[in-house]
Amino acid sequence: MDTGETTIGEYLIRRLYENGIGHIFGIPGDYVLTFFKQLEQSRIKIINTCDEQGAGFAADAYARVTGLGAACITYAVGGLKIANTTAQAYAEESPVVIISGAPGVRERIGDPMLHHKVKTFDTQFKVFEQLTVAATSLENPDTACHEISRVLGAAKCYRRPVYIELPRDMALRKIVPVVEPVLPPDMDTKPLAEAVSDAAGMINSSRQPVIVAGVELMRYGLESQVLRFAERTNIPIASSILSKSVVDERHPLYLGVYQGGMSHENVRQYVETSDCVVFLGMFMTDINLGVFTAHLDQGLSIFSTSEKTSIRYHTYNAVYLNSFLHGLSKADILRKEPPSIPHAAAKKDFIAQHGKPITIERVLELLESSLDGSNFVIADTGDALFSTADIIIPRAAEYMSSAYYASMGFSVPASLAVQLARPDLRPIVMVGDGAFQMTGMELATAARYKLNPIVLVLNNYGYGTERPMLDGSFNDVSIWQYSRIPQIFDAGKGFNIHTEEEFANAMAEARDYKDGFCILDIHLDPKGISPALKRLAGALGKRVTS
Amino acid sequence: MDTGETTIGEYLIRRLYENGIGHIFGIPGDYVLTFFKQLEQSRIKIINTCDEQGAGFAADAYARVTGLGAACITYAVGGLKIANTTAQAYAEESPVVIISGAPGVRERIGDPMLHHKVKTFDTQFKVFEQLTVAATSLENPDTACHEISRVLGAAKCYRRPVYIELPRDMALRKIVPVVEPVLPPDMDTKPLAEAVSDAAGMINSSRQPVIVAGVELMRYGLESQVLRFAERTNIPIASSILSKSVVDERHPLYLGVYQGGMSHENVRQYVETSDCVVFLGMFMTDINLGVFTAHLDQGLSIFSTSEKTSIRYHTYNAVYLNSFLHGLSKADILRKEPPSIPHAAAKKDFIAQHGKPITIERVLELLESSLDGSNFVIADTGDALFSTADIIIPRAAEYMSSAYYASMGFSVPASLAVQLARPDLRPIVMVGDGAFQMTGMELATAARYKLNPIVLVLNNYGYGTERPMLDGSFNDVSIWQYSRIPQIFDAGKGFNIHTEEEFANAMAEARDYKDGFCILDIHLDPKGISPALKRLAGALGKRVTS
Repeated sequence: MDTGETTIGEYLIRRLYENGIGHIFGIPGDYVLTFFKQLEQSRIKIINTCDEQGAGFAADAYARVTGLGAACITYAVGGLKIANTTAQAYAEESPVVIISGAPGVRERIGDPMLHHKVKTFDTQFKVFEQLTVAATSLENPDTACHEISRVLGAAKCYRRPVYIELPRDMALRKIVPVVEPVLPPDMDTKPLAEAVSDAAGMINSSRQPVIVAGVELMRYGLESQVLRFAERTNIPIASSILSKSVVDERHPLYLGVYQGGMSHENVRQYVETSDCVVFLGMFMTDINLGVFTAHLDQGLSIFSTSEKTSIRYHTYNAVYLNSFLHGLSKADILRKEPPSIPHAAAKKDFIAQHGKPITIERVLELLESSLDGSNFVIADTGDALFSTADIIIPRAAEYMSSAYYASMGFSVPASLAVQLARPDLRPIVMVGDGAFQMTGMELATAARYKLNPIVLVLNNYGYGTERPMLDGSFNDVSIWQYSRIPQIFDAGKGFNIHTEEEFANAMAEARDYKDGFCILDIHLDPKGISPALKRLAGALGKRVTS
Repeated sequence: MDTGETTIGEYLIRRLYENGIGHIFGIPGDYVLTFFKQLEQSRIKIINTCDEQGAGFAADAYARVTGLGAACITYAVGGLKIANTTAQAYAEESPVVIISGAPGVRERIGDPMLHHKVKTFDTQFKVFEQLTVAATSLENPDTACHEISRVLGAAKCYRRPVYIELPRDMALRKIVPVVEPVLPPDMDTKPLAEAVSDAAGMINSSRQPVIVAGVELMRYGLESQVLRFAERTNIPIASSILSKSVVDERHPLYLGVYQGGMSHENVRQYVETSDCVVFLGMFMTDINLGVFTAHLDQGLSIFSTSEKTSIRYHTYNAVYLNSFLHGLSKADILRKEPPSIPHAAAKKDFIAQHGKPITIERVLELLESSLDGSNFVIADTGDALFSTADIIIPRAAEYMSSAYYASMGFSVPASLAVQLARPDLRPIVMVGDGAFQMTGMELATAARYKLNPIVLVLNNYGYGTERPMLDGSFNDVSIWQYSRIPQIFDAGKGFNIHTEEEFANAMAEARDYKDGFCILDIHLDPKGISPALKRLAGALGKRVTS
């Protein structure tokens, strides 16, 4: 490895680029300026957001689409602003590399009060240890290469965020090249063989098996493998809300989104009456399980994740999703008869009714009927998420949400990253008014980098998810005229929408207008929440004070 | 103490109210809804911000003005968004109570994947342990009273943030009243007597003593005491940039802001040629010391803080600022002759020159000439901070900045809190375009609660503090039409300013218009940084790569 004249900053950039990082999101500060200059001179494009929070969310979305994302920010005042977005990436297995500048190693001698310091110089490091799967501070050129390899390896292995702190006097230090030891794979294949045989037997003897395809299949790039397995065996597939769009939702074997009592009734019934439910890479979260309204029998389940595999009541601690699915794919599993599974009725064309107030149901109908595979739907937390669970997403992996960690404000920054990573797809953002107010002004960043997401603000004048649980004026949000936001940036188009006709016309115009972002202020009845949210809020409300 | 029928939530609210909390800043979520309902039914007013970041900054500013502030947010997705604002409060000694909802204690049994969870249920607690001086999770009604007392006591004692986590099934649990033991003060007065006598001797034998009044005097409410001491002894007072406005800057004994090589020359010379510099509650930070360009002789210094007191080269570890200043005030210190200290020339009226482009120097001149004690100046990080160091602030404690931690985006949220805490004062916000883009949309919150700050956006099209250090397109920020922001909220007034005349007219109109916020988009030459910033940036630039 010829790295004799390479600096630590350059080496880090090269490793990021080799791992698919074409864009990095961030905001500079004096402790990280040198590294920004190195980035500017590299093949990686810097995307400046308005606030670090936007950079953190965008890096997470980028990681979900490409397999690795990166945010670069300054010490403390930048880094601590993305503690939340890093936590989201951790919770939902998104491999984000956080690169933070820091005071120089030599500056720290005598423990001076340098600007941005909190308690001690390692306060930020200790915070990020809680939020990442690996963390390092590159304080030693002798070990920097090894440390970069170690943490990037952890990000890719565990699909979780990692933290790299770069003291500013280290960015230009020459690295000391190391020969990375190549370790032979040393895996005992006997547990895998036993688990696969065990599972195959259970599937073969079942009457109505079903796969619930979870989010780890997306994180580990196993979407097509699971689909081939389903096609070979004729086992139908459901997804979870967090893994929605893991397979093309028009596929004949696709059942729908399973989420316990929140599911469409026919999906719920098919899964819960199955005598063999194969959960692959599924997070057993409250929201995925319809706030634990799922009725599942562990004695009829196969459950494989990146951490372990369980069949009925016994667990194979050394058998992981990737190899388990690979094993199943080659196992001797009988091909079933084509299953009789329920499908949603074919969509009719959306015909706007003149003067009729727009509702969330009708927004979803038009949205669904217009999706043709050229869009990427991004749902923010709240009814934007719950309501979109049942719309049919053509092709795979063209829907994104934060359905477990559920942080508000993810969607607009995410749309920037999605379009940079997938310029062939135009993002459609579904976002409530409350979430929009947190990060929506990152549309400035869309304008700056010539991106053109279509943003649907589901404006119900408050935190609509909370009103059915426990209401008060604290659930109101400030009143914004969202359709005027293009005037702030001298870019994009805004629409103010009260009726079905206005919505249909605006969507048509937005699709034709490619030169910038579009924002649709869709005025909804504050009490007009979606059926899915009604079911969820009822279930959650019982828990608020319980 | 009659608390038999009080719930934990009510008890916490009562203790906050008794400690001066009239407003609490935050955003609800399902894990904290019950507590929000309890707040709504109390005498504390909830101020909903657009994003949690705004709530965190506002609570910090509130604490600086009133002595205690509070932010209330939901678990993880709310709490981790204010890691940065809490770090700022820690660094700059601002007593903020962070109250976070959390999953119920009973919900956690079996370690389920509940929404908003990161690694474990105590991840957020561990993060906030790094950022606060005391933290508790109220999981036990038997100890809740005691724990609330302990952490609120720590906030008030150390003037630092504290963290209170309230699992949602605890808010309505009845407290178990406890009799707090009243401990007799058990302080050995001999170290104090020796230190005061030691300091008095040094002051009495000095030719040109000077006080440098630091920020802890503001945090501990000692502003008038230090002024009385100065008046009794005729010792002049300088401040630091972090403690700017600790005394009325028109006072005849006030020297100016001391910050090493960045000071006005006559201030620097007076302090650095003194044979007895009395630092009271001063933070020896890089920015306070002009990036360590200060020339100070420890052998000629007295240095007292909330943690210790040093005289020349020896330290009294058990002597603290409060009692030390009290002791000095009663000590036998000779009254000096009235000192001959330099004062800035009397201000001339600002006369706008027709058609002349506006500059930062002229903004400061008009601002200074118009300050009459009815305003509160809040400076964001960057040139907004550095440039305002030398304007004269009438009366005490009517200037605020984050001059040590230096987090961008503090000023607009801070202005909300300042005006709620001090409705007699109208805030004037000095903020760069970069910082405004981070939190400026909290002007929506100003509109919602009928507040009317005047916001001066010093628009130099980028991170002006960084350009002189190391420039690149990464120092550009997005282009916003700030003067149109009132159209988003249907409130306030906007002004677009290129010339001196436009600025003078806009300021006059803004002062007359009391019905809402005003925002002035002041277009500055991107290279036209203030003299103070030129000095600082030069010094910092040397350190970027050193």
